Amino acid sequence: MRASTLPVLGLVLGDCTGIGPEQCARILADRRLADAARIVVVGDARVLAMGARDAGVEVPTRRYATPADIDWTRDETPLIDLRNIDPASLPRGSVSPEAGKRAGDTLRCAIELARTGEIDGITFAPLNKAALHAGGWHFNDEHQMFAHLCGHAGFFGEMNVLDGLWVSRVTSHVSLRAALDQITGARIANALDLAHDTMRGAGFAAPRIAVAALNPHAGENGLFGREEIDVIAPAVAVAAARGIDCRGPFPADTVFVKAFAGDYDGVLIMYHDQGQIATKLKGFNRGVTVTGGLATVFTTPAHGTAFDIVGQGRADTGALEHAVRLAARLAHRRRFQAAQEKVEWQATAH
Amino acid sequence: MRASTLPVLGLVLGDCTGIGPEQCARILADRRLADAARIVVVGDARVLAMGARDAGVEVPTRRYATPADIDWTRDETPLIDLRNIDPASLPRGSVSPEAGKRAGDTLRCAIELARTGEIDGITFAPLNKAALHAGGWHFNDEHQMFAHLCGHAGFFGEMNVLDGLWVSRVTSHVSLRAALDQITGARIANALDLAHDTMRGAGFAAPRIAVAALNPHAGENGLFGREEIDVIAPAVAVAAARGIDCRGPFPADTVFVKAFAGDYDGVLIMYHDQGQIATKLKGFNRGVTVTGGLATVFTTPAHGTAFDIVGQGRADTGALEHAVRLAARLAHRRRFQAAQEKVEWQATAH
Repeated sequence: MRASTLPVLGLVLGDCTGIGPEQCARILADRRLADAARIVVVGDARVLAMGARDAGVEVPTRRYATPADIDWTRDETPLIDLRNIDPASLPRGSVSPEAGKRAGDTLRCAIELARTGEIDGITFAPLNKAALHAGGWHFNDEHQMFAHLCGHAGFFGEMNVLDGLWVSRVTSHVSLRAALDQITGARIANALDLAHDTMRGAGFAAPRIAVAALNPHAGENGLFGREEIDVIAPAVAVAAARGIDCRGPFPADTVFVKAFAGDYDGVLIMYHDQGQIATKLKGFNRGVTVTGGLATVFTTPAHGTAFDIVGQGRADTGALEHAVRLAARLAHRRRFQAAQEKVEWQATAH
Repeated sequence: MRASTLPVLGLVLGDCTGIGPEQCARILADRRLADAARIVVVGDARVLAMGARDAGVEVPTRRYATPADIDWTRDETPLIDLRNIDPASLPRGSVSPEAGKRAGDTLRCAIELARTGEIDGITFAPLNKAALHAGGWHFNDEHQMFAHLCGHAGFFGEMNVLDGLWVSRVTSHVSLRAALDQITGARIANALDLAHDTMRGAGFAAPRIAVAALNPHAGENGLFGREEIDVIAPAVAVAAARGIDCRGPFPADTVFVKAFAGDYDGVLIMYHDQGQIATKLKGFNRGVTVTGGLATVFTTPAHGTAFDIVGQGRADTGALEHAVRLAARLAHRRRFQAAQEKVEWQATAH
């Protein structure tokens, strides 16, 4: 792909009290992702400078008013400088409501750039949920916040990608008791559609999706619960009949063993910990989180702000790099798809 | 330890339609566990002979009427021949109600030998839950069956041991909805006592137990459920106050990462899949299952009957060997403890 056709990604530095700034500085300094995307930092120049100091690297930057102005032939990292966060006024390595508020403000700006088509997608370094909440962003997770900021009304959801396996969810950040009440045929259908579409957007022609059961031993033929028989199996059958390659429900304690062995491309889980126990144990620092279902592409490392190692310049950047590459892939295919649809529409119109 | 003081373990061949007989034949043929226990097979000679043929090994046996009669100086494997299963009349590699019934009958005989003190513990090769159930043993799992056969009325439960980490449960083979209703302070207290006592019985002086949360992110300070605040944390505090080294509740998706890294000796889980997802992903074929809380020691491999490879002589015996060694350790310490108590009682009495 020619550099001038690479997708333009907005890189958001994450919560400035965490490891995000130093991670971003490190991956920008040696331009190691220049083959995947054209990256523009959306944030505060002082935060990026702090990250560069922490990482012990140089990140020459050039400020622009909008992404459309960027001269991509230059070597400096382009920056939309929001001048909204002075890191010297904030703590490091601890929850700060002010940092949470500003992290949310920055994401809102990046989302506006995406909504107006000035960037093709967003990768953000780790946020801190408690800080966001304390800073006035009253959402159960950032995906709900993004949906709100994108004005999205339909189904959407968090997906976790690790070692090529895509884990998506029927329910997410709610109590387990509330999750049980949310597991309906309609939600399973929506979640299967979302997984199928998002994975196709990432390049799978026909993603193979395993559906996890809810109860131990997949309910042991109704002995340990009937949701598999009454709700999950019928929903899987309906989705399979409309062309989604999905199977199950399978016992949750063996489905990941099979999926990581390559039997499936994705697993649909019924509740948060079902998948998180497996993916965190399998690869704590490698996973990428995707917000599926929104008009804007969002990716982020699955790990958190890692307050215990902030400022030491030793934060691993593997997951962030995976996140940028995945956002680039999703954004590129989406642009390609939009162009296709435009051609088809013009063909129909004439 | 002198051979004559090793604990006497009853080895039960498991469901004869599965890989149990060949696994048992293999570990008996070369006497690889002779340093750990004095092993007597409780079962049918024809099933063991079939297992030896499958494994391609010779297992010379000598029949005895009771364990007390065994001449432990001889090299042949001692056998209490129940003459209750003709494997030629049963299928291989599929669920058989008849095989399930007979597997249960055999376990009942072994339990009788344990209750009368003729053997010190029981290790059994894999059972098949569906076959047991279809064969008339109407229990949700074998642990409930053992409790029934042992005439046990108090708290008991399945524990899973993998790579030195002990996972025990507040709830087990019930629907997730029923599990939510069973998670009470009293059950958590019982489960912590059981884990503590059983692990001490396995040689931990002061086992360090992490308690898993129920809700995602341990409830995120009540945002995603209040069980952590209202039920789990208070129960952990009470148990800690009476001397159990327990902490938590911790988010379920990171507690196993920390525990397998060595931060804890055990994890108490709230429901079946929480632990099973982690242990099966970590080491599908290495784990050992222990029935904690009963007067008789029971251990078995955590894996199942592996119908897909029955009769091929390639079933791995690692978990079965771990199970025998763990049963020997538990039985030895229990005998030692009983002897101590007798000495103390005599000292008190005089």
